[in-house]
Amino acid sequence: MNGSPISYSDKKYKVLGTRPIRHDGTDKVTGRAIYTNDVHFPDMVHGKILRSPHAHAKILSIDTSAAQALDGVLAVITGEDWPHLKDKIAHLGEGAVNLADLSENCMAIDKALYKGHAIAAVAARNVHIAEEALSLIKVEYETLPSVLWVQDAMQDDAPILHEDLRTDYMGAKGDKPTNIATHLQFEQGDVEAALASADVVIEREFKTATVHQGYIEPHNSIALWNEDGKLKIWTSTQGSFTCRQQVAELLQIPLSRVTVTPCEIGGGFGGKIAVYLEPVAALLSRKCGRPVKMVMQRDEVLEATGPTPGSYMKIKIGATKEGKLVAGDAYLAYDAGAYPGGVIGPGCMCVFSCVELPNARVHGYDVCLNKPKTQAYRAPGATQAAFAFESVMNELADTLCICPLELRLKNAAKEGTRRVDGPIYPRVGLIECLEAAKNSDHWNTPLEGKHRGRGIAAGFWFNIGLKSSVSATVNSDGTVNLLEGSTDIGGTRTSIAMQLAETLGIAAEDVHPKVVDTDSVGYTDVTGGSRTTFATGLAAYEVGLDLRKQLCQRAATLWECDVEDVRFDSGTFVGCDNKKITFRELAEQLPEIGEPVVGRASISKDVSTNGFGVHICDVEVDPETGKVRVLRYTAIQDAGKAIHPSYVEGQLQGGAVQGIGWALNEEYFYRDDATMANASLLDYRMPTCYDLPMIDTIIVEVPNPDHPYGVRGVGETPIVPPPAAVQSAIYHACGARMFKLPMSPPKLWKAISQLS
Amino acid sequence: MNGSPISYSDKKYKVLGTRPIRHDGTDKVTGRAIYTNDVHFPDMVHGKILRSPHAHAKILSIDTSAAQALDGVLAVITGEDWPHLKDKIAHLGEGAVNLADLSENCMAIDKALYKGHAIAAVAARNVHIAEEALSLIKVEYETLPSVLWVQDAMQDDAPILHEDLRTDYMGAKGDKPTNIATHLQFEQGDVEAALASADVVIEREFKTATVHQGYIEPHNSIALWNEDGKLKIWTSTQGSFTCRQQVAELLQIPLSRVTVTPCEIGGGFGGKIAVYLEPVAALLSRKCGRPVKMVMQRDEVLEATGPTPGSYMKIKIGATKEGKLVAGDAYLAYDAGAYPGGVIGPGCMCVFSCVELPNARVHGYDVCLNKPKTQAYRAPGATQAAFAFESVMNELADTLCICPLELRLKNAAKEGTRRVDGPIYPRVGLIECLEAAKNSDHWNTPLEGKHRGRGIAAGFWFNIGLKSSVSATVNSDGTVNLLEGSTDIGGTRTSIAMQLAETLGIAAEDVHPKVVDTDSVGYTDVTGGSRTTFATGLAAYEVGLDLRKQLCQRAATLWECDVEDVRFDSGTFVGCDNKKITFRELAEQLPEIGEPVVGRASISKDVSTNGFGVHICDVEVDPETGKVRVLRYTAIQDAGKAIHPSYVEGQLQGGAVQGIGWALNEEYFYRDDATMANASLLDYRMPTCYDLPMIDTIIVEVPNPDHPYGVRGVGETPIVPPPAAVQSAIYHACGARMFKLPMSPPKLWKAISQLS
Repeated sequence: MNGSPISYSDKKYKVLGTRPIRHDGTDKVTGRAIYTNDVHFPDMVHGKILRSPHAHAKILSIDTSAAQALDGVLAVITGEDWPHLKDKIAHLGEGAVNLADLSENCMAIDKALYKGHAIAAVAARNVHIAEEALSLIKVEYETLPSVLWVQDAMQDDAPILHEDLRTDYMGAKGDKPTNIATHLQFEQGDVEAALASADVVIEREFKTATVHQGYIEPHNSIALWNEDGKLKIWTSTQGSFTCRQQVAELLQIPLSRVTVTPCEIGGGFGGKIAVYLEPVAALLSRKCGRPVKMVMQRDEVLEATGPTPGSYMKIKIGATKEGKLVAGDAYLAYDAGAYPGGVIGPGCMCVFSCVELPNARVHGYDVCLNKPKTQAYRAPGATQAAFAFESVMNELADTLCICPLELRLKNAAKEGTRRVDGPIYPRVGLIECLEAAKNSDHWNTPLEGKHRGRGIAAGFWFNIGLKSSVSATVNSDGTVNLLEGSTDIGGTRTSIAMQLAETLGIAAEDVHPKVVDTDSVGYTDVTGGSRTTFATGLAAYEVGLDLRKQLCQRAATLWECDVEDVRFDSGTFVGCDNKKITFRELAEQLPEIGEPVVGRASISKDVSTNGFGVHICDVEVDPETGKVRVLRYTAIQDAGKAIHPSYVEGQLQGGAVQGIGWALNEEYFYRDDATMANASLLDYRMPTCYDLPMIDTIIVEVPNPDHPYGVRGVGETPIVPPPAAVQSAIYHACGARMFKLPMSPPKLWKAISQLS
Repeated sequence: MNGSPISYSDKKYKVLGTRPIRHDGTDKVTGRAIYTNDVHFPDMVHGKILRSPHAHAKILSIDTSAAQALDGVLAVITGEDWPHLKDKIAHLGEGAVNLADLSENCMAIDKALYKGHAIAAVAARNVHIAEEALSLIKVEYETLPSVLWVQDAMQDDAPILHEDLRTDYMGAKGDKPTNIATHLQFEQGDVEAALASADVVIEREFKTATVHQGYIEPHNSIALWNEDGKLKIWTSTQGSFTCRQQVAELLQIPLSRVTVTPCEIGGGFGGKIAVYLEPVAALLSRKCGRPVKMVMQRDEVLEATGPTPGSYMKIKIGATKEGKLVAGDAYLAYDAGAYPGGVIGPGCMCVFSCVELPNARVHGYDVCLNKPKTQAYRAPGATQAAFAFESVMNELADTLCICPLELRLKNAAKEGTRRVDGPIYPRVGLIECLEAAKNSDHWNTPLEGKHRGRGIAAGFWFNIGLKSSVSATVNSDGTVNLLEGSTDIGGTRTSIAMQLAETLGIAAEDVHPKVVDTDSVGYTDVTGGSRTTFATGLAAYEVGLDLRKQLCQRAATLWECDVEDVRFDSGTFVGCDNKKITFRELAEQLPEIGEPVVGRASISKDVSTNGFGVHICDVEVDPETGKVRVLRYTAIQDAGKAIHPSYVEGQLQGGAVQGIGWALNEEYFYRDDATMANASLLDYRMPTCYDLPMIDTIIVEVPNPDHPYGVRGVGETPIVPPPAAVQSAIYHACGARMFKLPMSPPKLWKAISQLS
């Protein structure tokens, strides 16, 4: 049930808020869209990677001679061929990464740090020869003890992944090796005193499992190291320029030597920002002088790319008996995977982000262990933290017998609220979302039936700003070509094009957006952080202003008047004596009045704005099996201004479904030997349309003061509330309060069993 | 023997005038450059065209049923499927064309007007099936009398190609059908009186044969008419936007529905401006829903694309006995081929373009006949005219016993000279070229030996201006990406990139030029008319200024000073207190100081500037066979400023070789049934490196006042002088004065025989 957005603005738009067919829609449904795996070159060869069977092992020797001798093998590389980099931090969209670590994550040098870690790579005439060659590579390992759980990895006697890693934490001087890569602290007010004064204090521990983004398209890349020293890459990436930068830095070549062509992308969710195959394919190509294609198998995707961290969290909140929060204390330990640089930072920023909390303290730990290096996954770090905090909020509501929605309204973050890490909110829409929930049909429909329960939770995520560029040219048929560097994962070609169309007063269909390679548009940051519709959309707005200005000048030339006498009024240029010419009419005349009209705009914005969401979930629990059925689900979110409401709804639905996956099913099962037992989509259980009802959505529009059309990015927030909403619904359905994700049938059945 | 340019400027440049390796060099020599025929799609099918075996015939019926029934055939089209267009003039680079004619030239509707005229087309699973299908198409023709020679076609009783064509000419009212499509007239002064007063008058008639551009790559195109109504074309074209416009107009769809990707081009010389295959492939694709590739055979290229006109010309000049020209009268009749719109216009403008001629008159005729529609071929129309005029000049020199070089110096066009069609020359370099010839080693080395002779001739061609756009982005490694819409036929990626490099004070290698599709850059006119290095180079200069301006602002941000206090000085930004930062250093800082830097520039220029050349030719004639051997050849030309002297030399050499081909060998041989007897490159005799000595070049640099770096386009002028230079050399070698091209062995042998 999707309706019109609930708007808090009286601005009227012609294009924004409509639902045109997406520009790339036909190609997507007819199969004409070009993904990397659709790209072929006549002399292309195929690369495969040999991966560590051990979770932690020294590499004593690698003998590739038999592989190299195999007929049809063109190149073999190992860590020996890999540039050894010094520590240097690179920023990759929503996170920062040490290049030396990134490098070793692409190809192990001395040690394998997780099962699946790349050890060597082969390029051969076809995939079968490449696989045969892998089997001929002899690696001598010395296996080491491994550690897979964050709390274990923090112990003094834990197996150490990085002998040179030192961190000061909990007041102790970091003078010996540790797996703790970072200890973050945020604090405001006097937490201890406030907790002491609270009427009620609740403290709970939570654990979450490692889960994967589960994009349908596995990682796949083609590299051609050309004879002129230029490197061309075709790949599935969320950020072509980010990929360019990583590849250039990892291979130690000037970045303009690298051209990245972002092909269509079959899902990313944060997992296609860091490179895996690109530099490997590049080195193989340099060695054999041919284009090299590499495509991961699903088990490689699960075992050797970047899932989200498993976590251990402890939350303590204090409140008055009326339900006013007085203090919060959070301890968050997230696994980083094999290398430092996990998503603990945003986890710490987000844990208390939905409430006004004068006294708050957060300690966060980024902990290395023998699992694949974690990466961003849709609102990275926020879902874990929200599961913990929002669950405690629901328990507080239950304890105080306050409606959980009223509890949130009473404590909601709003304009002027200071978040624990410092920023003060501009106008935000959490209260409006809570009001929308309160007024919703879902909330006002009593849930009847046995073993059924309802839960609610809120969620928050940033809109990162960063840099975007677009160019635009005016065609003489009144249409506009729009070039952009933002890869299109979720319909951003259209959401960006619509902002340009609105600015020019033309139809969405009359803007032709195109995602181009890194040579063909100005620097543009990664598609991630809910920034693309927001920030690249802002660039599209600005390029519209640039075109309008030039076109006013052309109208003045046409009418032989001063440009000051020409103004633009929603698609029409108006001159003295009320002379008028539409955008299209003027475009048709352009060939006769001067040079071609080309616009450009670049923007650079700080992280500034943010989106809140509130989800309502009804479940039914089967106490015999512990299986949970989601009966009804409503995702409510402040989109600022929903450029294309259908896509906003789609984002809300997609995020909610992924969050429900975290809540109920998804996890990496590890065997005793620290290898993954369910490295296929058959066994790694993501929800499908057969598992869920249609997700209802309510779009709220509280304009973002940081954007001329009030846009807020919406892509990530909707994954944040589901686990806590489901957890509360389960509690209300069967009385079991779950503190560990996923709340899968065996765990829930056990919890229900222990209730009686 | 190529030396440094002879410069008439004291400007110093860092990049201009150097000879870096061309940016696309590696891809060209390693075979990685992508031509249209290298592009493949999984479900691509192959198109072939059925062509008329008759030079002139009514199409009574076409039965395609058997072809359509053939297994593997996906689509068949005929003129029936073709949009029938009204007359509308479209400008295509150097010429103008009627769209209805262009349409019918791509697919005959009622009549076949030349042997090779397209009658039907087939798309099939492979080329063999397509060819078999062609053989199954039954066409019923009523053959008509045909006419192949321009003077014959002008006769009252000539077979008429277009029943509705009417033209006023020679004072007669055009009230009956004619083959004469245009009668042009230019006149200044009093020609009759001046001729009457002349000491000497020479009048001669000349004939030239139909010759073809002879590009190595045949026409080839791929079209995909997508399910969303968008049409994508990959093709070998001199002008992607021109192609887009033609296809859109011929198929009656909005031009922004068409995206043209210009692949690498294996030669064009004017012959790859008009479309042939593109709209046919598009309609086939629309019918079968698949991408359709079409590649011409060589005989199709020769018989059904656009060679240069054969011509009949009469030149009369009067001079004083000291050799001062007093009057000129020219009658030029060029064949248009099957449809109006030949190159008679520039022929008329160029015939007297190298001299100051106060009294001059030109009559020009564009005449339809049953040969393929003529098209531009390097300095279109000028070579014919120069053959006639310069030959008469040489005869005048011989008659008056004046050195032909001195005769030309005495009469040379210069700044202030009014050309017969109106324009007054700005500063031009003909005199400087003649002086360079006079001072050359070639001219000063006596030619010894029997049957040997030397000839000289001058030539002229325009630089058309028109529209160009470029965009540029600054990379943080100090390099710049440059996007351009000008297809690169002769090294213009580099000649344009060097102008941007000079403007920014960086190395040529640090600009990365890229020719992109019609969606990705502003409107840019065709690569032709010697405009690209000149006009798109001007856009590159302007985008450099745009970047400099933005970078001054960034330096000011960096130094926290006013932008007015920052200036750019050859690659370095200089602030107050003599603070300095190089382009590269500033580029490295850009990510920290604001939004990405993107530049754009568009230009629109009139035809304004021009290039003159002078060629010296030594030949040896074998009187036994009439075979002519070129012993030594020097091409001298005013390049204004030679951006990349090696490419200027290459243009001079290539043009000279083509002109020598016209002079000595190339012609369409027609059989009695009006079909071409030599439709292969084995029989159509173009000169190769085995036939010729190395062509020496001398570059003269008289700066073009219309360009900031003084650039003049150089591509076309060098084809203009050779036929007349060779003609004069032959005369001096053996006493035979030839008035008909080519001066092939049989013709020369016959002329020599008649001397005695």
